[in-house]
Amino acid sequence: MAKSKYEYVRNFEQDDRLLPSTWLVVRIDGQGFTQFTARHGFAKPNDIRALHLMNRAAVTVVDSMREIVLAYGQSDEYSFVFAKDAKAFERRASKLATLLVSKFTAAYVFYWAEYFGQTQLQAPPAFDARVVMYPSDRIMRDYLCWRQADCHINNMYNTCFWALVDKGGVSRKDAEKRLRGTLSKDKNELLFAEFGINYNNEQDIFKKGSVVVRSKSLVGVPDPSGQI
Amino acid sequence: MAKSKYEYVRNFEQDDRLLPSTWLVVRIDGQGFTQFTARHGFAKPNDIRALHLMNRAAVTVVDSMREIVLAYGQSDEYSFVFAKDAKAFERRASKLATLLVSKFTAAYVFYWAEYFGQTQLQAPPAFDARVVMYPSDRIMRDYLCWRQADCHINNMYNTCFWALVDKGGVSRKDAEKRLRGTLSKDKNELLFAEFGINYNNEQDIFKKGSVVVRSKSLVGVPDPSGQI
Amino acid sequence: MAKSKYEYVRNFEQDDRLLPSTWLVVRIDGQGFTQFTARHGFAKPNDIRALHLMNRAAVTVVDSMREIVLAYGQSDEYSFVFAKDAKAFERRASKLATLLVSKFTAAYVFYWAEYFGQTQLQAPPAFDARVVMYPSDRIMRDYLCWRQADCHINNMYNTCFWALVDKGGVSRKDAEKRLRGTLSKDKNELLFAEFGINYNNEQDIFKKGSVVVRSKSLVGVPDPSGQI
Amino acid sequence: MAKSKYEYVRNFEQDDRLLPSTWLVVRIDGQGFTQFTARHGFAKPNDIRALHLMNRAAVTVVDSMREIVLAYGQSDEYSFVFAKDAKAFERRASKLATLLVSKFTAAYVFYWAEYFGQTQLQAPPAFDARVVMYPSDRIMRDYLCWRQADCHINNMYNTCFWALVDKGGVSRKDAEKRLRGTLSKDKNELLFAEFGINYNNEQDIFKKGSVVVRSKSLVGVPDPSGQI
Repeated sequence: MAKSKYEYVRNFEQDDRLLPSTWLVVRIDGQGFTQFTARHGFAKPNDIRALHLMNRAAVTVVDSMREIVLAYGQSDEYSFVFAKDAKAFERRASKLATLLVSKFTAAYVFYWAEYFGQTQLQAPPAFDARVVMYPSDRIMRDYLCWRQADCHINNMYNTCFWALVDKGGVSRKDAEKRLRGTLSKDKNELLFAEFGINYNNEQDIFKKGSVVVRSKSLVGVPDPSGQI
Repeated sequence: MAKSKYEYVRNFEQDDRLLPSTWLVVRIDGQGFTQFTARHGFAKPNDIRALHLMNRAAVTVVDSMREIVLAYGQSDEYSFVFAKDAKAFERRASKLATLLVSKFTAAYVFYWAEYFGQTQLQAPPAFDARVVMYPSDRIMRDYLCWRQADCHINNMYNTCFWALVDKGGVSRKDAEKRLRGTLSKDKNELLFAEFGINYNNEQDIFKKGSVVVRSKSLVGVPDPSGQI
Repeated sequence: MAKSKYEYVRNFEQDDRLLPSTWLVVRIDGQGFTQFTARHGFAKPNDIRALHLMNRAAVTVVDSMREIVLAYGQSDEYSFVFAKDAKAFERRASKLATLLVSKFTAAYVFYWAEYFGQTQLQAPPAFDARVVMYPSDRIMRDYLCWRQADCHINNMYNTCFWALVDKGGVSRKDAEKRLRGTLSKDKNELLFAEFGINYNNEQDIFKKGSVVVRSKSLVGVPDPSGQI
Repeated sequence: MAKSKYEYVRNFEQDDRLLPSTWLVVRIDGQGFTQFTARHGFAKPNDIRALHLMNRAAVTVVDSMREIVLAYGQSDEYSFVFAKDAKAFERRASKLATLLVSKFTAAYVFYWAEYFGQTQLQAPPAFDARVVMYPSDRIMRDYLCWRQADCHINNMYNTCFWALVDKGGVSRKDAEKRLRGTLSKDKNELLFAEFGINYNNEQDIFKKGSVVVRSKSLVGVPDPSGQI
């Protein structure tokens, strides 16, 4: 087809191919979700419908990009791990990150009603994404440990915070003050002593997050127990 | 909050801030839209509902990112122009491109029913995005000329192609053969002589694409005439 | 010629082409020059032999890379400005910076004896280099102003410092203390009142630095007056 | 010290830190050495003085950058391998490559007379450099195999070529034609049958290149046998 004299502007596009033989992680993250969750009345500290919707969107992504070997999600974030030797889109960073976040977002909106029923989606949500390279298997594993440790730390904090606020009638500000500087065992004790909550009995999907793995015969919706 | 020993993996995240004082364009592009449009019965060569939906999604994006000064769309692509001195997200390439494409995609799915009515969305669509830097006003303008010339060239070709196929009863293969090597004036003549179509009378939104500009008082839905 | 099975490692080389139509500056800078100048007995605050040698090396570089339009030097640094539309080595950042710094360094050692006579070079010197892109003429000019302002500020400070130390018999520590917080006019006065030095009468090459420009007929050794 | 209003131009400097925990190789390469070797009457196919000078320059570099664990050289190129966890200059690509090539070049000129005696250096030589990341030990080793295979292939070809030209009285053009498409065993035979040369008896430094390793007690000039 005919080409225009303006074609030269293509020369300003820069090559952003990532290093070969290196693990690639695309992590997507909800943008402005504090407001979004408030607006849609998400349960606190965890909304099981929202987590299942995140998982559904993640499965849609994994289904459509064959070189993703694993995905891990918690709260409003999800990490997708591409095989070391993944070749998709010549490993172009922008292509991988934008296509993936677009598929995820589309699925999130598309499947919303399946999980939220009568709760209408009020406005389109948004996620950002970044690609990170990890050169060795050990560091790749540490990345997943990092996200899961983050899940654990945040969830324990949030469980205490919302117990204090919702059940203890404490103001948000005082709850925050109360938790400042506390260790894991302090939080365990607070939950048990004041609210009769045994943190160990909380659902695994809250404490540990969710994993999507590709099975030989099928890619299934992840087990809600969410164990790694 | 507590930090884990895995925190070091953050050091693998690389800085991708773009050059200051340079025009930034984020161009999004439909992925696999040949199949998507077929599946949803889009009118050929242009589906006015689809173009208006693209415009609606673009307005949503422009509304939410204050440093976008202009957006130009045609077919299944849209270009968003950030002010030279835009500071959003420290001008990080991945942040700008992923957030924008996510907002666009979410809006596309969210507003689908407003434009397609009874035609149900069958599956989540997807778009990719890239950021390109343009150092001068002249080259920035040439970029927009490039996209609009592309719109013109493609639309004229497609108008002929679908006239031959839908009205002329010609096979797709023969239509392609017939158009190979033809110039603009040949196509104009073909349309007029064989199908009584005066290309100049085609709708502007088809021939020229659509523009979103930020007005002082409000950001409106772009005029469907789509003139630059 | 035959290719080995190890050839695949070339795929790890990454593309580092710089943006087209953008000013490129390669700035080289002496590494460990405090020690180097002490070891070779450089005159303080300025050694005219050393500045002329820097200029000689810069001219060698400009002679060998036709797309350099201007070079500016002061102290142990030199900036080389490539034309906006320079095409050398496909504008690959590493190629431009390494080749240039290598040529500069080679010339510095090669021509040493011409400027330092009996003062033998004791050990090989070293320079580092970086490439920076500047998108507009105004910013390009501001870059040169930045380096020249830096020359002025440093030279005035050093002129005072060494007058205090060499002529005033003040310790280096006390000289530093004495100059802390002083303004330009304070330094002018100090020089005149205590040492009878009129700063305006200092050599231009010390106060303003040196410029290499490409003339139509020849590229000459820069005028030691060093005016921009 | 005072700062000027032009300081903002520093914001155009971009971050080029390389991935952590990844092998880094800086490979330097002679620029325009066909002309340079002709001008200085280098012996063909190998000039032992030149190889020893390259080795001397490489040792100077290794001596000055403690995180280089190995260097491999052949002909007019040298590769320097930095430890996976090297921290020098925050792993900034441009800093590592430019400083290294500058040190190498300076040493090459500085030590020239030690190796070339009465043969005066006519003009400053130049080298370029690039940095490449290798994520695993296996790929790092393959890189070194690649360079050594290249050494072997080139040296065998050049040994034949110069035997034909210098001893066989064949024109360069005919020598090239004669060698086109020949395999390793063909070249071995040609050398033995026509010139009585047993390629296996050629010096190792020609056939295999040179290695610089850091020893616990001292960094020595590499053994001219050059075995890996």
